[in-house]
Amino acid sequence: MQTATRPAPADTHDLFRATRARSRELVADLAPEDMVVQSMEDASPTKWHLAHTSWFFEQFILREKVAGYASPDERFAFLFNSYYVQAGPRHARSQRGLITRPTVAEVMDYRAHVEAAMGDLLAQGDEEVAELTTLGCHHEMQHQELLLTDLLHALSFNPLMPAIRAPEPRALSEPLPREWIGFGGGIREIGHAGEGFAYDCEGPRHEVLLRPYELANRPVTNAEWIAFIEDGGYGDARHWLMEGHARAQSGEWDAPLYWWKQDGAWWSFTARGAQPVDPNAPVVHVSFYEAEAFARWAGARLPTEAEWEVAAQGSEIAGNFMDDGALRPLPARPGEGLRQMHGDVWEWTRSGFDPYPGFRPPEGAIGEYNGKFMVNQYVLRGGSCATPRAQMRHSYRNFFHPDRRWQMSGLRLARDA
Amino acid sequence: MQTATRPAPADTHDLFRATRARSRELVADLAPEDMVVQSMEDASPTKWHLAHTSWFFEQFILREKVAGYASPDERFAFLFNSYYVQAGPRHARSQRGLITRPTVAEVMDYRAHVEAAMGDLLAQGDEEVAELTTLGCHHEMQHQELLLTDLLHALSFNPLMPAIRAPEPRALSEPLPREWIGFGGGIREIGHAGEGFAYDCEGPRHEVLLRPYELANRPVTNAEWIAFIEDGGYGDARHWLMEGHARAQSGEWDAPLYWWKQDGAWWSFTARGAQPVDPNAPVVHVSFYEAEAFARWAGARLPTEAEWEVAAQGSEIAGNFMDDGALRPLPARPGEGLRQMHGDVWEWTRSGFDPYPGFRPPEGAIGEYNGKFMVNQYVLRGGSCATPRAQMRHSYRNFFHPDRRWQMSGLRLARDA
Amino acid sequence: MQTATRPAPADTHDLFRATRARSRELVADLAPEDMVVQSMEDASPTKWHLAHTSWFFEQFILREKVAGYASPDERFAFLFNSYYVQAGPRHARSQRGLITRPTVAEVMDYRAHVEAAMGDLLAQGDEEVAELTTLGCHHEMQHQELLLTDLLHALSFNPLMPAIRAPEPRALSEPLPREWIGFGGGIREIGHAGEGFAYDCEGPRHEVLLRPYELANRPVTNAEWIAFIEDGGYGDARHWLMEGHARAQSGEWDAPLYWWKQDGAWWSFTARGAQPVDPNAPVVHVSFYEAEAFARWAGARLPTEAEWEVAAQGSEIAGNFMDDGALRPLPARPGEGLRQMHGDVWEWTRSGFDPYPGFRPPEGAIGEYNGKFMVNQYVLRGGSCATPRAQMRHSYRNFFHPDRRWQMSGLRLARDA
Amino acid sequence: MQTATRPAPADTHDLFRATRARSRELVADLAPEDMVVQSMEDASPTKWHLAHTSWFFEQFILREKVAGYASPDERFAFLFNSYYVQAGPRHARSQRGLITRPTVAEVMDYRAHVEAAMGDLLAQGDEEVAELTTLGCHHEMQHQELLLTDLLHALSFNPLMPAIRAPEPRALSEPLPREWIGFGGGIREIGHAGEGFAYDCEGPRHEVLLRPYELANRPVTNAEWIAFIEDGGYGDARHWLMEGHARAQSGEWDAPLYWWKQDGAWWSFTARGAQPVDPNAPVVHVSFYEAEAFARWAGARLPTEAEWEVAAQGSEIAGNFMDDGALRPLPARPGEGLRQMHGDVWEWTRSGFDPYPGFRPPEGAIGEYNGKFMVNQYVLRGGSCATPRAQMRHSYRNFFHPDRRWQMSGLRLARDA
Repeated sequence: MQTATRPAPADTHDLFRATRARSRELVADLAPEDMVVQSMEDASPTKWHLAHTSWFFEQFILREKVAGYASPDERFAFLFNSYYVQAGPRHARSQRGLITRPTVAEVMDYRAHVEAAMGDLLAQGDEEVAELTTLGCHHEMQHQELLLTDLLHALSFNPLMPAIRAPEPRALSEPLPREWIGFGGGIREIGHAGEGFAYDCEGPRHEVLLRPYELANRPVTNAEWIAFIEDGGYGDARHWLMEGHARAQSGEWDAPLYWWKQDGAWWSFTARGAQPVDPNAPVVHVSFYEAEAFARWAGARLPTEAEWEVAAQGSEIAGNFMDDGALRPLPARPGEGLRQMHGDVWEWTRSGFDPYPGFRPPEGAIGEYNGKFMVNQYVLRGGSCATPRAQMRHSYRNFFHPDRRWQMSGLRLARDA
Repeated sequence: MQTATRPAPADTHDLFRATRARSRELVADLAPEDMVVQSMEDASPTKWHLAHTSWFFEQFILREKVAGYASPDERFAFLFNSYYVQAGPRHARSQRGLITRPTVAEVMDYRAHVEAAMGDLLAQGDEEVAELTTLGCHHEMQHQELLLTDLLHALSFNPLMPAIRAPEPRALSEPLPREWIGFGGGIREIGHAGEGFAYDCEGPRHEVLLRPYELANRPVTNAEWIAFIEDGGYGDARHWLMEGHARAQSGEWDAPLYWWKQDGAWWSFTARGAQPVDPNAPVVHVSFYEAEAFARWAGARLPTEAEWEVAAQGSEIAGNFMDDGALRPLPARPGEGLRQMHGDVWEWTRSGFDPYPGFRPPEGAIGEYNGKFMVNQYVLRGGSCATPRAQMRHSYRNFFHPDRRWQMSGLRLARDA
Repeated sequence: MQTATRPAPADTHDLFRATRARSRELVADLAPEDMVVQSMEDASPTKWHLAHTSWFFEQFILREKVAGYASPDERFAFLFNSYYVQAGPRHARSQRGLITRPTVAEVMDYRAHVEAAMGDLLAQGDEEVAELTTLGCHHEMQHQELLLTDLLHALSFNPLMPAIRAPEPRALSEPLPREWIGFGGGIREIGHAGEGFAYDCEGPRHEVLLRPYELANRPVTNAEWIAFIEDGGYGDARHWLMEGHARAQSGEWDAPLYWWKQDGAWWSFTARGAQPVDPNAPVVHVSFYEAEAFARWAGARLPTEAEWEVAAQGSEIAGNFMDDGALRPLPARPGEGLRQMHGDVWEWTRSGFDPYPGFRPPEGAIGEYNGKFMVNQYVLRGGSCATPRAQMRHSYRNFFHPDRRWQMSGLRLARDA
Repeated sequence: MQTATRPAPADTHDLFRATRARSRELVADLAPEDMVVQSMEDASPTKWHLAHTSWFFEQFILREKVAGYASPDERFAFLFNSYYVQAGPRHARSQRGLITRPTVAEVMDYRAHVEAAMGDLLAQGDEEVAELTTLGCHHEMQHQELLLTDLLHALSFNPLMPAIRAPEPRALSEPLPREWIGFGGGIREIGHAGEGFAYDCEGPRHEVLLRPYELANRPVTNAEWIAFIEDGGYGDARHWLMEGHARAQSGEWDAPLYWWKQDGAWWSFTARGAQPVDPNAPVVHVSFYEAEAFARWAGARLPTEAEWEVAAQGSEIAGNFMDDGALRPLPARPGEGLRQMHGDVWEWTRSGFDPYPGFRPPEGAIGEYNGKFMVNQYVLRGGSCATPRAQMRHSYRNFFHPDRRWQMSGLRLARDA
C-alpha cells in the first residue's frame, strides 16, 4: 500500500461498514448452492471470497493489534489464506470448490465476528489500523469484482443459463463513430501521485518518455468485433501472436467468451442471463491475445500503459459504477474527447506487468500482494461496470495472463501519431 | 432386468414408497452446500443422485405410460440422464459439480412431482409398470449406496473432516482367527435362479466347472492389512501386478484410502469423522490391485466369482443392513463356517466383469444398464454396510475398475484345495 | 517356461544361431536413423530390441553360468532391462528413443560378444542352459515381431511414407464366403500339453466346460469391415462397449489404424508403403474395442480363448510364416473347415488374460515374464504374418490392452450354436 | 531484416560458404543416431536443423529468384518449414524426432544441392539476393547454436553421458571480485544503428529514458550460485516470483540444469561430458525465474535491456567465439570495467520481448521471423560461448520463455545508483 496522506480513522470506519455491507448485498439473492462451486483454478467460490476477505482483516489486523484475539475456528486460517506464503500454509487453490463446510451461514457468522472485533478496534482511532483497514477494504472491493466474474463463469456451465440479476428490457443504443484523439510526446509522469489510496505497484511515480500517439475516442464495440469475426479474423494467423493463435485454436475460440450464434444473430451469457449482443456496446470477455490480433487486423495497436495513463490524466473519472450491481456494459455516449475510460470495460494494454523503476514491495506478507505476480501478465487499465467506484483511479494497474477471458476485459485502439 | 416371477403391483407400490423415503432420510441432515460438490469424475453430487433417480422413473415409465405426462422442466432430461445414449443427449459427467440450479429444494420438488405421478400410475395395477418400477427402485438403492460413498469422498478433501453421522463410542471388538472352509469341485450352477428381482447381467443361470477350493471364514482384517504394510508390502513389486504397482507408486499409496498414521497409530476418515482403525474389523477402501497383491503376499489368491457364489449358496443373507445408515464395518462374529459374506464389505474377486454364456441385454436404452460396462472392470461380491438389504443376494455382481478405492471394498482370501 | 520334455542341447544351439541370424536379416536394409526412434511408450526402437534380446541371454544365462563373465559395458544392464524388477533398476521405458549411444554398430558388437560367449557355453551341453536358451530364443522371436510392428508404427508418422520392404504387385484375391463351423459342448481340455516349448502362462493344462458354439471359417475381411464403416458402425454407440466408444471418439477412429480414404478408395500404410486395401484380405490393425463392436453389429460375438483353442486342436498349423519378412496378410484360401487360424492375423478373443487354474509363475525374475501382466489385457490367438513360425501353437496366449491397434490384430466371429 | 547499408554480393558469397562449412564441421564427429532424436518440443534434431537451414534458402531465395528451380523432393518443404504460416503447411514440431527419412546422408545431399544452386545465383551479383542470403546465413548461425544446445539436451538423457567433444584438462581459474560500474541517467538511444546486419526486431533505433544505475563488472559465477543454493535459495518463496517458485517446485529444481552433487562436490553435464563445476566460471543453464530470484536474494535486480545495451555501447565485442566449437564458459579475466559482456553466457534481462516503438515487421512470411513471438518471452543480451562471432552485436535481442534452461543462459546483476 502506498499512501502519502494517511486516511482519517473515522472515514475508515465508514468505508469498512460500507464495504462489508456491499458484499452482503451482492450475494443476497444467491442460493447456498451457487456459492460453493469453483469452475476453474483461477476462479473461487462465492463463499470463499466472503471468508477470505474476512480472514484478511483477521490475519493482518486483528491478530496483530488485538491482544488475545480468538478466531471462531483456528483452522479457517488454513482454508482462507489465498497465496500469502509468509502468513502460513494454505489450502490448495484448485480444491476450494470441495469445501462444503463451513456452510454459507457459518461463513456469515465468521464475517459478523470479524466485523464486531474490527468495529471495536476501529473505535480506538489507531492510525496504522486505519491504514491497514483501508487496504483491507480495497482488497475486499477487488474480491467483490472477482466474486461476480467467478460466479458468472461458474453459472455459464449450466445449460439452464441461470441469471444472477433479473433480465430487463434494453434501450436501443446509438452507434458512436470511432475518432482519434492525439497526444504529444516527451517526458511525462505516471504512477500514483500521493493522494488517497493506491496499491504498492502503482508507484513510485516516475518519468516516462513518450512519442506522439493517438487513442480512439471509445473502446472497440461489438459491431466492430463482429466485423473481425466475419472477415475470418480468428482463423487468419497473420494477425496473431503465435502463442495467441495456438491458444485460439486449441480453445476453439471463434468469438468472445460467452458468445454463441443462434438463427443468424449473436447472443451472450450475462449476469442477466442470455442476452442479444448489443452492437454499440463495448466488446467484453476478450483475451489479450484476441485484443492484440484485433488491433493488428484494424491497422492499429494496443496502447502502452503509460500512453493510457497520460491520456487519462486530463479526464474526470466517470462511469457505470455498479449502482445496481449489474454487469451491463453501457453503450457509447456521443460527445467530445475520450469516452468510457472507466466503468465500462477493462482495457488491455501492450505493457507487461513489470515493476516500475525503483519499486520495492513492503516487508512481510503484505509485500506479496502484487510484486510476486510481475511476470507473464499484461496490464489492463480503466475499470469495468463490475468495478466498485472507489477502485477507479488513473494509476490503477489491473493485470491478468494474456489468455484469460473471464474478466470484463475489452480494448481501446492506439496508433502512432 | 431378469425376473421369472413378476412382482405384485401392490408390493411394488410399497417398495417404491419405502425406497423414496429412504433417500430422503439419507440426506436429512445434510446442508445444501454438501449436496452440490463433485470430487472426481467417478463420483456425483448428492443432488444429482436425488434428481437422476427421479429422472429414471420419468424417462422409462412416466413418459412411456402416462399420456400427456409433463415434466416440471423438460431440460432436466439433459441434466439428469447419466449414460443412456438411447435416451438422448446428456450433460458431461465431469461437470455435474458445476450445476447449482435447480437447487436442492427444487430437486426435492421434482422428486415430489415424480412421486405423485408414479403413485397415480401404480394405483392402476399395470404389470409392466410394476416390473419397471421394481427396476427403478433397485436402481435408486444402488444410488443410495453411491450417494454415501461419493459424499464421503467429497468430504475427505475438507481439512476440517466433517462427519456425516455423529461419532459414537465403539465397543471393543474381538479377533476371529482365520480358518479355511473347503468346497468340492465339479459342475455347479451359478447365476440368478429366477425368483425375485435380479439385474440382467446376473443371468442366464449356467453351469460352471470348478476345482476343489477353500475360502477364508471371514474377510481380511485391518490387523492383517497392517501386517502387510509393516512387511513393506506396498513397496515390494514382487507381490504386485505391474500396472497395480505403477498405480500404487503414482498415487503414493501406502495404506488403504482415507488412512493416515498419527502418533504411531492408524486412523481413518469415515462417515463418523476421524476414527481409530479397528484391528478386528474388515479392511475397507482397498483397490483390486491392492487386494490382489495382498493375497499373493499372504500365499493365497482371490476367489473367482463362481467360487464365491457357489460357496455362498449354502448361507443365509445376514449382515449389517444400514439400519442406521452408518458406514460401520462390523468386527468379526466368531462361529462356524463362512462369516460376513454380506453386509460388511464388498469382496473383490479375480473375475473380470464379462458376459455370462448366452447373455443378451434387453432391447432399447434399458439394455445399456450393465452390458456396455463389460470390459476392464472386476467383479465384487457380497455387499457392504452401506448396501441396502434388498440389494443383497448370492448372484449380485458389483463391478468397478481395478484401481478404484472409494467404494467400501475389501477382500476374502481363497486357495486351491 | 513350461516344457515337459527338455530340449536337446544340440538342437538348441541350432535354434540359437538361426534366431540370432534372423534378427540380423530383419534389419539388414534399415538405416541407423530408422533404428533409434520410439513413437510411443508401448513401442521400442529397433536398436533397443536388438540390444535387449542380447541382454536377456547375458542376464539370465551368461551371468549365472559363466564364471567371470564380463559384459562389454556394465551399464548396458541398466539401459536394456525391460521390466524385470528382480534383475535390477532400469531405464525409463518412455525414454528409450533418446538413447543415441551405443550406436547401432556398437549394439551389433554387443550382439556378437554375447553370441560368442553363448556359443562357448552351449558347446558344453548343459541341459539347464539349453532350456533357458530356448526361452531366450522364443523371447527374441517375440521381439522380432514387435520390432516390425514398432517400426511400422514409427514410420507411419513420416509423411513421406517410407516402405520397409520394396512394394510389389499384388495378385487379385478371391472372396471366400463366410460359413459357420460347429463345435459341440462339454468338458474339454486346453493349455499346453507338455511337448515342446511353451510359456508359463499356457499352463497348467486343465478342463474347461463349453456350450455348443460355432466359429466363422475365416477371419473378418476388409470388405466386411468397410460395410461396417459404411453402415455408420464407428458412430453408433449401441454397438460398442462404453469405454470403447469413448476411446474411438477421443482418438477420432473411423477406420482401422493406418487406413485413409483417397478418391473414394481405402488405402493403408504397410511394410510395403502405401497400398490399396485388399477387400478379401483379413482386416488388421483393429483394437479389441473395434472387434467387439463389429461382432455385435454383425449379430455375432467374439469367441472365448477356450472356444478358439478347442476348435484349433483339430487343425494343422499352416500359415504365412514371414518367409520374406513381409507384413502381407494373405487373402482367404477357399476350402473346407477353419482356415487361416495361424499366420495371417492375431485374433482377438473375449477372454481377459487371467491365470489358468493352478497357475504359478516360476521363482525369480523369470517369473515376471507373463504373470504380472494379468490384468486389463485381452487374449489374442493364432499368430500373424509377422509371427515367426516357431511361435505358433494352439495354446499360445498373446495379450494386449483393448485399445491397442498397432499389432497385426484382427478377429474371427463366433456365435452360440 | 534491417540493414541500412546493403551487403556487397562478393562478401555475401564468402559468408555463405563459411557459414555452410561451419555447419558441416559442427556435425562431423556425430553418429547418424545422434542426429535424429528430439528430446522436447522446444528442441529439434540435428538433422532437422541441417535441413531446415537449407529449406530457408530454397524457400525464400531459390524459389523466388531461379526460374524453374527444382527441389530434390517437393515434400521437404512440408517437413522442414519451421513456423512460417505464409510459406505453407508444415510438419508438427513435436514430431520431428520421428522422421528417420530422409537420412542424414540424404539431408547432406539436399544441402549440397541447395549450395550449388545458391552458388550459381550468388555469382550473378543480385543485391536483393545478397541481402536475403545474408539473412539466411545469420539464420543458419542461430541454428548452429540451437543445434548444439538441443543436442546437449538430448544427450543429457543418456545415462552413459556421451560427450560431444573430447574431454580436456581445465586450467585452474582465478576468482574475480564483484565490482559495480556506474552509468548515468537521461535520454539515450538504443536499437540497431544502421551499419551491418541486424534482425528486424532490433529496430527502430529510438530514445529511452534511463535513471542512474550500476552493473556488475562480470556475470554471476558458479561460486555465487552455490552460495545461493546453500542458503536455501531454491526453497525460500520470498525470493521468487510466484510462478517461478511453482515451476521450480514442480520441476524439482535445486540447482542449474545439468548439475548434480556427487561426494559433496557439484558436477555438470557439458559438451565435454561430465565435468566438475568451476567456481569462477559464469553460471549457465539457469532460467529467468532462477536469475530473478537470485538477484533478489543478492539484494540486486536484473538490468533492463536498455540498461544493458547502453552500458555495452562503450565496449568492444570480445569473447569466446566458439573457435573450437566447445561449450566452455571461460572464467573471468581480471581487469577494469565491464567484462564478459559477449561470448560467455547469454544474460537474462528484466525486459519482456516487446516491440520497439514504431516497430513494423516486413510484409510476407519473412515478417514472421521475430514479431509473432512478442509475448511471454524475456530478452537475453550478449551471446554465449556457443554463439558464432558474427551474431554478436550490442543491439542483438535473444529471447526465451522465463522457464527455459537449456540455452546457455546466465545473468549479470544490476542495481539503482
